[in-house]
Amino acid sequence: MRFKARVEVSLKPGHSDPEGETTARALRELNYPVKNVGVSKVYTVFFEASSKTEAEEMVDEMCRRLLANPTKDDYKFEVEEIE
Amino acid sequence: MRFKARVEVSLKPGHSDPEGETTARALRELNYPVKNVGVSKVYTVFFEASSKTEAEEMVDEMCRRLLANPTKDDYKFEVEEIE
Repeated sequence: MRFKARVEVSLKPGHSDPEGETTARALRELNYPVKNVGVSKVYTVFFEASSKTEAEEMVDEMCRRLLANPTKDDYKFEVEEIE
Repeated sequence: MRFKARVEVSLKPGHSDPEGETTARALRELNYPVKNVGVSKVYTVFFEASSKTEAEEMVDEMCRRLLANPTKDDYKFEVEEIE
């Protein structure tokens, strides 16, 4: 069975977000009244697994082992079977 | 009025995604049966505007001027008023 996972990795609250801060500053320099910007990353992963349960466990493991840094990142994901 | 925009910037189809390819290779090296990975970025922007319409026009302009590269990126966004 083939699956598609959408994984969103964002900084835990309280961690500094240099890319967000740089983006906020650049938008303010263009005269937009921006207070704050946060940046997160979305991975769309196409993969195989033998069941939906296995697919979800696999994605959770991918997040913990590679996609997210447990010290500073939060992650959430959705998995759907595809044709 | 204060608004929150969620902007997702992704590569247009057919553009190479080196970060996605590197991530796919790293997952395969960990023995996950991964076919393909795409990476996109989400900006969460907190800003001020005088109406929802103005807020949406402002975010569209931010995308065209700074957040997305019109040559290679697609973008979509949602805007909501916040307290």
